[in-house]
Amino acid sequence: MHDVSELQVFFNPKSVAIVGASADPKKPGNTAMKNLVSMGYKGKVFPINPREKKILDFRCYDNLLEIPEQVDLCVFLVSAELTMKVSKELAERKARFNDVKGAVCMSAGFRELNTTVAKQREKELVQTLRDASIRLIGPNCLGIIDTYSGFNTNFDIPSYKKGGLSIATQSGAFANSYLFWSGGLGLVGLSKYASIGNMADVSMAELLQLWKDDESTRVIGIYMEGLSNPAEFFEVAREVSAVKPIVVLKSGKSALGATAVLSHTGAIAGSDAVYEGEFKRAGIIRTRSVSEFYDTLRVFEKQPLPGGNRVCVLSHMGGPGTICIDEISATPSLQMAKFSPETHRALKEICAPMANIGNPDGYIDLTAAHYETLHNQVLKLLFQDPNTDLVLQTLGPSAFIDQKLIVKEISKAYESQTGSRKPFLNAVMFGHFALETRKGLEDAGMPTVEYPDSLARVAGNMVAYASFRRKATDGAGEGVAAES
Amino acid sequence: MHDVSELQVFFNPKSVAIVGASADPKKPGNTAMKNLVSMGYKGKVFPINPREKKILDFRCYDNLLEIPEQVDLCVFLVSAELTMKVSKELAERKARFNDVKGAVCMSAGFRELNTTVAKQREKELVQTLRDASIRLIGPNCLGIIDTYSGFNTNFDIPSYKKGGLSIATQSGAFANSYLFWSGGLGLVGLSKYASIGNMADVSMAELLQLWKDDESTRVIGIYMEGLSNPAEFFEVAREVSAVKPIVVLKSGKSALGATAVLSHTGAIAGSDAVYEGEFKRAGIIRTRSVSEFYDTLRVFEKQPLPGGNRVCVLSHMGGPGTICIDEISATPSLQMAKFSPETHRALKEICAPMANIGNPDGYIDLTAAHYETLHNQVLKLLFQDPNTDLVLQTLGPSAFIDQKLIVKEISKAYESQTGSRKPFLNAVMFGHFALETRKGLEDAGMPTVEYPDSLARVAGNMVAYASFRRKATDGAGEGVAAES
Repeated sequence: MHDVSELQVFFNPKSVAIVGASADPKKPGNTAMKNLVSMGYKGKVFPINPREKKILDFRCYDNLLEIPEQVDLCVFLVSAELTMKVSKELAERKARFNDVKGAVCMSAGFRELNTTVAKQREKELVQTLRDASIRLIGPNCLGIIDTYSGFNTNFDIPSYKKGGLSIATQSGAFANSYLFWSGGLGLVGLSKYASIGNMADVSMAELLQLWKDDESTRVIGIYMEGLSNPAEFFEVAREVSAVKPIVVLKSGKSALGATAVLSHTGAIAGSDAVYEGEFKRAGIIRTRSVSEFYDTLRVFEKQPLPGGNRVCVLSHMGGPGTICIDEISATPSLQMAKFSPETHRALKEICAPMANIGNPDGYIDLTAAHYETLHNQVLKLLFQDPNTDLVLQTLGPSAFIDQKLIVKEISKAYESQTGSRKPFLNAVMFGHFALETRKGLEDAGMPTVEYPDSLARVAGNMVAYASFRRKATDGAGEGVAAES
Repeated sequence: MHDVSELQVFFNPKSVAIVGASADPKKPGNTAMKNLVSMGYKGKVFPINPREKKILDFRCYDNLLEIPEQVDLCVFLVSAELTMKVSKELAERKARFNDVKGAVCMSAGFRELNTTVAKQREKELVQTLRDASIRLIGPNCLGIIDTYSGFNTNFDIPSYKKGGLSIATQSGAFANSYLFWSGGLGLVGLSKYASIGNMADVSMAELLQLWKDDESTRVIGIYMEGLSNPAEFFEVAREVSAVKPIVVLKSGKSALGATAVLSHTGAIAGSDAVYEGEFKRAGIIRTRSVSEFYDTLRVFEKQPLPGGNRVCVLSHMGGPGTICIDEISATPSLQMAKFSPETHRALKEICAPMANIGNPDGYIDLTAAHYETLHNQVLKLLFQDPNTDLVLQTLGPSAFIDQKLIVKEISKAYESQTGSRKPFLNAVMFGHFALETRKGLEDAGMPTVEYPDSLARVAGNMVAYASFRRKATDGAGEGVAAES
């Protein structure tokens, strides 16, 4: 792995020039200016626009050469043609002042057009910047968000709450969708966001390497279409996986999907079977659906890794409980816990006679005879049992349950754990009626999903990764266990 | 198929006795009384409770024999032990007055306990009622909802909007979860709901048969754990499938799941491979996840069947568009449409130069250069093209799009279709931020899902069923095409 510290400039530049800054609120160049400062970015901002004197209280410059202070980073928000012209100006500035370290090119109209002209254009852009020792993110992307430095080039997302997820994506819109989706209920906190589009220069591998040592990054999410240098990526990924989880959604799996990829980021999707094997060897968690990608990232961001694979399921609804157990059975990394005799006895004592305790092992269905404090008592027993490694719970509509109270009782049980906590995941199965319940649990650090089968799948991903990590630490990494 | 018209009494009884009706708002017997009349049920209501004179303005009776008018149906909301006693009273009433046709036994404590005593108890209950020619739904269930008659025994769900979904379930809580989940955004309308628990008497097959000719039922959803008479069920299901779609979620697939099933409804889950084959032969759409079950029911409830398998995808986001195409490729029932030369030419004319039109066939990515009326124009072309059978669209966050306006433009395009409409499904990819957008589309009859891969899966289910149905009509039904 080479030194990637020079990439820090993309996430916390001391100063930034915005080529294409606009005073017109309907233009991306205006929204980008607003979003740039909406999270408290402390660096200097130099809008470039020859037709304006000032944009949002920042003095405007006619061109890059005119800025009288040091410029760390340059953001391009203009057409591909204009980008070509201004990139030469940027190189000239570098030659004169030896300041600019990076450029974020959000403009489209490069390799993804798949024409000779556009491909040549991208080549020239890269060459111009490379000759000037300026690193490039993009083109054809939505750039950067860093919630800790407050730096933000994304014109769709004004701000986002701090957290442990860092996301690298070949589709800015896809990552934006995730943040919009999760934002409303505060389902996940963000550290860094890098939409890298065509990846003409800065690669996925370099970002991984940078984030390996980033203290605020707990989990890395990747939306991948295709890599230009897979060998480099997987070598780096294997080292990073030994330290923090990497969760991938890979598209372009099919021939038709690969055609779409070529027109989207100009990437070569590659053989899916080859990728599949490499993901496993590198300890990368490959998710099979958008929903699984969304949920898996969130549980890693919020919860500790499990110490083993023994899972127990608490339900008050026989159907959803059974669905969850079926999915656990279909997940090779998981096995149902077997309660200790003490736990079994204590559960029998506090649950209603018609409750199902231990059929199959590790399963409890409280039935409609459940009540708020019973969830607390049962959960405490499950957390304490030395035979359990993860606890899953399904919650559903129940006319006689006070939702605020049950959230409180569940939180108390969760927080009563002494020493290292066991992962605890909830399926809150009643949609828009349950927003308060979900929010209550999420705010107290307990991730929620919507469906009991999702619960098993994300638990399986946690266990598979934890197992890889233990082996990697022991020096005998064997890849992430296959999921069916 | 035998005559099942006697089952009508469960959905629209002229009069109903509620054993276990309560004046205490904290008891199910009170909530059930409230819910019974909250949707405008017009039949007579006779609460039975020797300790009360009146419950919710209805005169209370000490016992079933005392009711001076005809009783059509009886609902049991008391313990298993008391149910046994009162069921004998019910049989006696029938002998004297020859009135009662059905009983809904919501009480638990029967076969699902898997004890000799409890199994014997269920046997006796069935025998008592059978000898009196009283049909039984349950025990261990949440009973009935009929949005058209307004009849409702469910103590969790006070009311629900009218529509075309009828649902039969071995887990009341599971079906309730679905209705809570979909209720907030009005994602689906309900016709009939039957939670049949242990299915000691009235079977899934009988309900299917009843709903085959029910005009307000457009699609039938089943949550199944295990059948006591699979041969009967699949014979009926095959006939019903020829007329309306049946969508199933089957649990107890694994050995552990089967153990949970036995303790939940006392059912034998059976060999999953056998069920799998039978589902296909009977034209039943078997869904693989809770989410797919939820979404598939909704699209059948709202949309017409496709005339063929040629699907096109409209996106403004390359990533989600590609994910959708990958999933289409993985869905054997679907193939990408090939635009007619006229459509291709017209699309080229109205879209931005950087838009991707037809890579691969049937795909359009408008890119960030999209705008509200462009969606209208493009959709109109896609609906008109004789080479398309279904239209899928992915929508995501976009700082420069007016969400109200885009909903209006999309609706206009959808409604502009003359003659038979093509199915049109949307993925609205930005969660809680997009509730208004989703609601707008749903209210105008266009179903929405959250993820682009879900979009392909539900479209695949529609096409697979439509193909089965065409073959069934031609007298050459070959089962629903397998999904990978």
